[in-house]
Amino acid sequence: MNPKVLIIMGSDSDLPVMEETAKILGEFEIPYEMAISSAHRTPVRTLEIIKAAESKGAEVIIAGAGMAAHLPGVIASHTLLPVIGVPLEASSLNGLDALLSIVQMPPGIPVATVAVGKAGAKNAAILAAQIIARKDPKLTGRLSDHRKRMSEEVEEKAGKLQKQ
Amino acid sequence: MNPKVLIIMGSDSDLPVMEETAKILGEFEIPYEMAISSAHRTPVRTLEIIKAAESKGAEVIIAGAGMAAHLPGVIASHTLLPVIGVPLEASSLNGLDALLSIVQMPPGIPVATVAVGKAGAKNAAILAAQIIARKDPKLTGRLSDHRKRMSEEVEEKAGKLQKQ
Amino acid sequence: MNPKVLIIMGSDSDLPVMEETAKILGEFEIPYEMAISSAHRTPVRTLEIIKAAESKGAEVIIAGAGMAAHLPGVIASHTLLPVIGVPLEASSLNGLDALLSIVQMPPGIPVATVAVGKAGAKNAAILAAQIIARKDPKLTGRLSDHRKRMSEEVEEKAGKLQKQ
Amino acid sequence: MNPKVLIIMGSDSDLPVMEETAKILGEFEIPYEMAISSAHRTPVRTLEIIKAAESKGAEVIIAGAGMAAHLPGVIASHTLLPVIGVPLEASSLNGLDALLSIVQMPPGIPVATVAVGKAGAKNAAILAAQIIARKDPKLTGRLSDHRKRMSEEVEEKAGKLQKQ
Amino acid sequence: MNPKVLIIMGSDSDLPVMEETAKILGEFEIPYEMAISSAHRTPVRTLEIIKAAESKGAEVIIAGAGMAAHLPGVIASHTLLPVIGVPLEASSLNGLDALLSIVQMPPGIPVATVAVGKAGAKNAAILAAQIIARKDPKLTGRLSDHRKRMSEEVEEKAGKLQKQ
Amino acid sequence: MNPKVLIIMGSDSDLPVMEETAKILGEFEIPYEMAISSAHRTPVRTLEIIKAAESKGAEVIIAGAGMAAHLPGVIASHTLLPVIGVPLEASSLNGLDALLSIVQMPPGIPVATVAVGKAGAKNAAILAAQIIARKDPKLTGRLSDHRKRMSEEVEEKAGKLQKQ
Amino acid sequence: MNPKVLIIMGSDSDLPVMEETAKILGEFEIPYEMAISSAHRTPVRTLEIIKAAESKGAEVIIAGAGMAAHLPGVIASHTLLPVIGVPLEASSLNGLDALLSIVQMPPGIPVATVAVGKAGAKNAAILAAQIIARKDPKLTGRLSDHRKRMSEEVEEKAGKLQKQ
Amino acid sequence: MNPKVLIIMGSDSDLPVMEETAKILGEFEIPYEMAISSAHRTPVRTLEIIKAAESKGAEVIIAGAGMAAHLPGVIASHTLLPVIGVPLEASSLNGLDALLSIVQMPPGIPVATVAVGKAGAKNAAILAAQIIARKDPKLTGRLSDHRKRMSEEVEEKAGKLQKQ
Repeated sequence: MNPKVLIIMGSDSDLPVMEETAKILGEFEIPYEMAISSAHRTPVRTLEIIKAAESKGAEVIIAGAGMAAHLPGVIASHTLLPVIGVPLEASSLNGLDALLSIVQMPPGIPVATVAVGKAGAKNAAILAAQIIARKDPKLTGRLSDHRKRMSEEVEEKAGKLQKQ
Repeated sequence: MNPKVLIIMGSDSDLPVMEETAKILGEFEIPYEMAISSAHRTPVRTLEIIKAAESKGAEVIIAGAGMAAHLPGVIASHTLLPVIGVPLEASSLNGLDALLSIVQMPPGIPVATVAVGKAGAKNAAILAAQIIARKDPKLTGRLSDHRKRMSEEVEEKAGKLQKQ
Repeated sequence: MNPKVLIIMGSDSDLPVMEETAKILGEFEIPYEMAISSAHRTPVRTLEIIKAAESKGAEVIIAGAGMAAHLPGVIASHTLLPVIGVPLEASSLNGLDALLSIVQMPPGIPVATVAVGKAGAKNAAILAAQIIARKDPKLTGRLSDHRKRMSEEVEEKAGKLQKQ
Repeated sequence: MNPKVLIIMGSDSDLPVMEETAKILGEFEIPYEMAISSAHRTPVRTLEIIKAAESKGAEVIIAGAGMAAHLPGVIASHTLLPVIGVPLEASSLNGLDALLSIVQMPPGIPVATVAVGKAGAKNAAILAAQIIARKDPKLTGRLSDHRKRMSEEVEEKAGKLQKQ
Repeated sequence: MNPKVLIIMGSDSDLPVMEETAKILGEFEIPYEMAISSAHRTPVRTLEIIKAAESKGAEVIIAGAGMAAHLPGVIASHTLLPVIGVPLEASSLNGLDALLSIVQMPPGIPVATVAVGKAGAKNAAILAAQIIARKDPKLTGRLSDHRKRMSEEVEEKAGKLQKQ
Repeated sequence: MNPKVLIIMGSDSDLPVMEETAKILGEFEIPYEMAISSAHRTPVRTLEIIKAAESKGAEVIIAGAGMAAHLPGVIASHTLLPVIGVPLEASSLNGLDALLSIVQMPPGIPVATVAVGKAGAKNAAILAAQIIARKDPKLTGRLSDHRKRMSEEVEEKAGKLQKQ
Repeated sequence: MNPKVLIIMGSDSDLPVMEETAKILGEFEIPYEMAISSAHRTPVRTLEIIKAAESKGAEVIIAGAGMAAHLPGVIASHTLLPVIGVPLEASSLNGLDALLSIVQMPPGIPVATVAVGKAGAKNAAILAAQIIARKDPKLTGRLSDHRKRMSEEVEEKAGKLQKQ
Repeated sequence: MNPKVLIIMGSDSDLPVMEETAKILGEFEIPYEMAISSAHRTPVRTLEIIKAAESKGAEVIIAGAGMAAHLPGVIASHTLLPVIGVPLEASSLNGLDALLSIVQMPPGIPVATVAVGKAGAKNAAILAAQIIARKDPKLTGRLSDHRKRMSEEVEEKAGKLQKQ
């Protein structure tokens, strides 16, 4: 089945965080593809991956990057698909550099930015599911179930607290 | 025609910025609705507006807020629709407070965050169009035209520069 | 005895810090209740807990939260009780995100914010005691004793220094 | 009638902001007293004002200060009353210096910190009313009315928007 | 005469700052060319301008950009020429967003970053002159003269001070 | 021999850093006294220690403090001696809170601020020696020797590098 | 009479702020000298001015600088006199760049740093007076008088408030 | 063979980072020299090293420094060669102090600043190679090869990902 989401990251060191995205897309049964390509070190390859994903029918692109994190913005300038950017901690500046490099896009080319690090990687998957659910109503049901499970998990943990 | 996008903001002082969103949605011929409601001062009313928008068939919610900007996150916790958050400058801290309050959502409830202020308000509209284009291919054409116009504007300005 | 203070936090991972609050309330013999509920993942449950605490006679609510820390503000928008917010470190941004998300509340809905992390968790308990002491003069005596003990501890440590 | 709240600030240049506090206390019919005294330039006088306010029956102290804003913390170390700190913009650093100087109190001596500037000055008054309402139930009614008025104001502004 | 330096910026609103670069290059008699092209809105055009500049014999590229300032990094990934990045103030975040987006380049693709705004625009020209001087010794003399003039200007202003 | 310098800190947890100050004062043969006393928890004791130090002939006071670091400023408001403030890392905010709380003193009451942490603790001792050297010329010689030793240490380390 | 304090700044644009230093030194009847010289543009001249000031008997050097504010540190590395650094706002970064560039001196070469801008310029003069007072007891009296006047000014302004 | 690049750093603790620079210059077969000398502790020695490097034919100077990182700027004020500054993490402030102290040079004396830490140390070498390549075309070939190798490494890592 053709991938609906392309997960792309600048370096294999980003993989442990971006796998959180893959895991949640898997739970939603959304087919995805993962790629490693750098906006700066392999710019041509990056564009080829984007174009291939588009032609295979991708609906959303999720790009994780650290430092001067240009990958999500560069991709967004070459596609009309929604691009979700995940800022990663890859320098001493705690991911603030990546956050500002991704979210402060100038008018015309948006990047849908989520939180720094693992929380953002997870939320990128959920946001992608919310977007794809616009045309695939099955996903709305799964999103609703996912939210119920989260709610039950909070209640379960809260229950343990009260028994202490 | 039913609104496809709800633009909501916490205060009427946010209107001059959020009108940039409305203007661009208008250019894309995407029907929208604007509302003022505060996450903190009118929490019940906020939820009613969200529910009404959902039942009228909204596909995306765009929420602008300043300071401890909870509006986008609070809305996201009550809907399964994609929520786009626009951080606004409403305090002495230059919008950094709003940016962090919107983008740093904990795992489970994403907000698609764009840049602080007018640049973000414009990009929120384009991002909404990209999302709605998933099921409405006409929009892909309009997004493509919009991008061409932007490109031509840059070239026109560049042309003036060379004539100086 | 009915709880006078509700300590609420968004996740069980916040418990090791928020137990500092509980410990000091215990020293002041102020009955309290602890709850885990998320502003975003279990919004309805959060309101139910607040309403239950109010009806049992709570005087103060202490809410700890990290990242885009909306819990204290969301609670404050649904109660007239004083709400104390404890910003927690839950991301790479050192708790600055939580601090700004809690303290920068827009006009109308205050949150009494204390320091990031354990220092704040402790001070939240003392602040709650100072508030409840307004109608329960016994607490003023205990607050005065607590301060004397702190002062003696400083002197004792200082004494050890001089003997070195 | 004896003041229930002491509003104190370090400099007469803080008056235009701190008058927002006074105005809202007035709306709540809470008697208050205003004083100017610096933690650094008039430390003895500051303590005398605190002691006098205590002996006249003050329930809450609200202290506004800018830069290395020590006034709220210094007062808190000399009283058992709840102290609310309002960080003010008084340097090029946008009030971030005052915010950190007020909120980051070490364990033992809390300061209930509110937002930087006018938003915080207003919220300090509401928080004081919430605290005093613990023993004066009339205030709970006024707080409830105030919140209703805020809600109506939002609705009124929203109504104007829809008529445009 | 073929341009030795390409000055490129993302928007015509950057022109008033980047003209400082042009002015100083003019003083050094270094032929230059100015272009407006956006990394995001006109990515293809940007690469064409870079390739054209290379083929005309450019030695250095100076790129000014604000917000999520990707232009210098994107150019650097497509050329082996030294690229100087000038962070510009184009949002509420005072140019800190642009600074981090330009300077925090990941290993492999450097951008020689200078100060935010006009100071940086001037220094970009001097740095370009220092680089070109490696093969054009005439420029070393002009750089030395420029530095002498700066020194004399300081002395002249200091002289006026003493006469007051 | 009476202490010429009082080293004071708010907590015994600050001792490992502030011992760097003591060590360098020892190298300069400047008699000193160490004390632990908190601006907030033991305000009266703090003033007594300051007055005692003054009456014993102290020339300089060095105060180390973390978080909302009021100790140096509070001391400075009660003495005419020069006060040196050492910001300490005592929270998640990396000492930035302490730095701003110490350095941003309002006009009238200066605190001579040095770097955050051990570098600052060392420099506080050297600065105290430079101040005391104004009336004790022997110290100028020792400062000069100290600087020579530093210079020799750098050269020695550099020498090892060249032999590699 | 020979100057006891050298006030030096990097640019004549710093003069309006640094004149605050001169004014207060004048009130203390401390002879001073003002100079303009840049650490970077006129490094040799800067050292000559320092050496001349030392030989004329200066006791303290006050250096004001903005941006990457190296002037105070460079001077401190060439003299054994106490050097006071005044961070100035000279870029879009609100003086935070200058503050960190001055205060974060590595171990060995302290700079006594005061607040950013006019508050710091005033406090630099008072700190210089406190240092010189170590050997000139007349100054202690003037410092005491100055503090009394400040205290009276606060009381006078407070008095006006009460009459309103 | 005479060194074309001088790598200089303020302390031997900077060596593990700055060796990354040396390693990459070695790969480019660019002869270099390493030196340890402090802008503040050994200012005279620093200038002597610069002058010696110039007379031996150095084309570029790379200076690494932490905290109030003056070394690159001080060197730049004494040479007409291009100076590359590498900000290092040497305090609790994550290298932000060093970054601002290096990049925010006032107009007239540029420092080509790269990223904080190891990423910057590596990029400093590549930038130096790009500068020297202006007169030594062999280096352009090696830069091109280096970029190809980087690209191949990315592809190889990406390949491993796909095989998982």
